[in-house]
Formats: sequence, C-alpha cells, structure tokens
Amino acid sequence: MREVFHQSLEDLQNRLVEIADLVTVSIDKATRAFATSDVALAEEVIADDAKIDELAVALDEQAIEILARQQPVARDLRIVVTALRVSASLERMGDMSEHISQLARLRFPERAVPKGLKGTFTKMGELDVEIARTLSELLRTQDLRLADAIRNTDDDIDELHASVFEKVLSDNWKGEATATVDATLASRYHERFADHAVAVAKKVVYLATGDWHVDEEDIALAVEQQELGHA
Amino acid sequence: MREVFHQSLEDLQNRLVEIADLVTVSIDKATRAFATSDVALAEEVIADDAKIDELAVALDEQAIEILARQQPVARDLRIVVTALRVSASLERMGDMSEHISQLARLRFPERAVPKGLKGTFTKMGELDVEIARTLSELLRTQDLRLADAIRNTDDDIDELHASVFEKVLSDNWKGEATATVDATLASRYHERFADHAVAVAKKVVYLATGDWHVDEEDIALAVEQQELGHA
Repeated sequence: MREVFHQSLEDLQNRLVEIADLVTVSIDKATRAFATSDVALAEEVIADDAKIDELAVALDEQAIEILARQQPVARDLRIVVTALRVSASLERMGDMSEHISQLARLRFPERAVPKGLKGTFTKMGELDVEIARTLSELLRTQDLRLADAIRNTDDDIDELHASVFEKVLSDNWKGEATATVDATLASRYHERFADHAVAVAKKVVYLATGDWHVDEEDIALAVEQQELGHA
Repeated sequence: MREVFHQSLEDLQNRLVEIADLVTVSIDKATRAFATSDVALAEEVIADDAKIDELAVALDEQAIEILARQQPVARDLRIVVTALRVSASLERMGDMSEHISQLARLRFPERAVPKGLKGTFTKMGELDVEIARTLSELLRTQDLRLADAIRNTDDDIDELHASVFEKVLSDNWKGEATATVDATLASRYHERFADHAVAVAKKVVYLATGDWHVDEEDIALAVEQQELGHA
C-alpha cells in the first residue's frame, strides 16, 4: 500500500513538472508574440492553454482519487493538498501567457508592445521564462535553493513592473490611451505570472520545512501600487 | 462518526459564509473609498483584508484536519476539497477589494476615480456588492437559482468593464495617463472580483448536480479582450 502511495505521489509530481514545462513554453511564445505581433504564435499559445487546463483538471481528479482511495494523513495528506494548489497556480500562469497573447492578437497588424517599452517587456518576458523554468526544476528536484532564485527573479520583475508605470506616468510619455492600457495590462500579467510562481515555491518550501508564512503573496503588488503612487 | 462529520461540514460551511460576508463588506467599502477618495475607509479595507486572509487560512487548516481525521470519500470528500477552493477564491475577492482601496489611497488627496467614469465605477461596485451578497446566500442556502443570478450579474459587470475600455480608447477620452492606468486597473479588479464569484458558484452547482464544466471561467476575460480590440 505504501509502495502504491509513493508511486501515486511520484505520478502527481511528474504531472506538475509536465504542466510547468508547458507553462514555460507558453510564456516564452507569448513574450515573442507580443514583441513581434506574431498572430500565429499568439494563436498557438491560446490553443496550448486549453491543453494546460485539461492537464490541470486531470491532475486534480487524480489527487482527489488518491485522497479517496489511499486516505493519506499527516505530511502525505499535505503533499496531495499542495499538489491541488500548485496545479491551480500553474493553470493561472498559463492564463497569463494566454492573456498576453490575446493582447498581441487584438492589436494585430499593429504592434501590441507600446513604443519605448519594447526592451522592458522583452526583459520581463525573459525573466518570466526563467522563473517558470526554475519552478519546473524546483518541482522536479525539490532543491530549495531554487525557491530563493525564484524570489530574487520575482524582485527583478517587480522592479520592471514598477518601471513600466514610472514610464507611463512620466511627463515624457507620448503614448496614446491604447498604449497606456496595453502597457498596464501586459505588465500586470507578467507580474502576476511571477507572483504565482513565488506562491508555488513557498508551498514547496513549506512542505519541505513545515515553515509556513502567509500574507506575503501580495507584497509585490503592494510595491507596484506604491510605485504607481510615486511615479 | 457520521454525526461528527456532518457537524464538521456545517462548521466549514459557516466559516465560508462568514468570509463571504466580510468580502461583501470589503467590496462595498472599497467602492465608496474609491468614489469619494476616503482614505480612512480605504485603510479600513486594507486592514480588514488581513482578517479575511486569516480566516481563510484557518478554514483551510480545518479542512485538512477533517481530511486527516475523518477520511471522507466520494461526495463528502469533494465537499471538503471544494471548501478549500472556495476559500481560495473568497480570499482573492478580498484582495481585489484591497487593491481598489490601495488605488484610492495612492491618489489621495486627488480623486482616484477617473473623470467621466464615476457613474460606471459606482455601478460596477454596486453589482460587485450584489454578487458577493448573493454568493454568501448561495453558500448559506445552496439555492442553485442564486448561481444563475450570479452569472447574470457577472454579465452586467463584463459589459461595464468593456464600456470602460471603450471610453478610455475613444477619441473623446481626455484623461491623462494616470486616469487611463487607474481606470484599467480598477475595472480589471472589479471584473476579476465577479469572475471569482462565478467560479465559486460553479463549484457549488457542481457539488449539487455533479455537472462539471471547465474552461468557462475566462469567457468573461475573452469578452473583455475582444471589446478592447473593437473599441
């Protein structure tokens, strides 16, 4: 029974890694679609998101099946509940890629990326890809140093996010309202993407150490809002 | 044992209703703080959100305790897992109220609500309050007609959300970039608030009927993005 249970957990873990890998691909494609107004690539991300959603639902069903059949307790139980939460976060990360792609598709044949912010969004996208790849690795290896790396990358993304608002709200900003809206939404999507990764990393750390802190997930947003105020 | 279990479920349900009631108060206050630049009221919402987060964590701990001690299966198991998910959605709804309040606080002593959109945001806020109140009632009574009401109200909110973008992207829009950013973010927060309520309502319906549809949660956003494109 114990053997069977550990097999099941390993299977859950593999599924999480598989979804995280797809999310990594999706944010990479979304970033490129947004930067280059590649509407075919944007469509790909949107179609792939349905696959991510399906895999997340299948994982949830399997987790519930494990709860029902194997009745885990203590740490084993927390692993399964955590898998449910991680899958929800990964699914939302996929949604963020999709939303960025939808912006690209909307503006086609115009460029979605607002003038003067191309470099910032390319960098944000690269960091989001890095964070997703690190998250996948964290889920695969449980190497907790990777959780720190994710937090650090998230800090960099928050800075870029703040810089978008600084730019948009500065006197030099010549963008039309469309560009302002696109910059606001795209930046928020990138920032939320990273936030979800941090939330997952915290859950993995919690499982490994039992050290549980809540209420920190929105620190990044608090920073954003402050920057928004000061810009 | 059966008796104990049903007592536990009732307790979970009561806790969800309690959180939903607090969320209703928070979105009502947030809407007023945003409309009138009432920074004291905004501070209240921000402080109250910590309470909502605490209650959600306590509920989650209790749900995990029930899973561990009472080892529910079949429908009972799904009820407990659903409670975990509903608590996560309610917690996010509280976050949306907090974000709206943070915008109000940021802009103080200026008005956060952009010129020409005061009526729209007041209406969105009222509908969000209505949706939260209905959600609380749905959680209390399991009356599934309330789920339909929530969906309908969400449609109205989506229309208002689209109208914000239409306004902001129209040639008549004279707002500065600050107003454009605030309108974009506040409208998105209101719309996400309602989306979370719809997600919860679907879970309640699913529990009652076993009828499970996924991938619908982002229809509202797809509509938003389309409108954004056509405006």
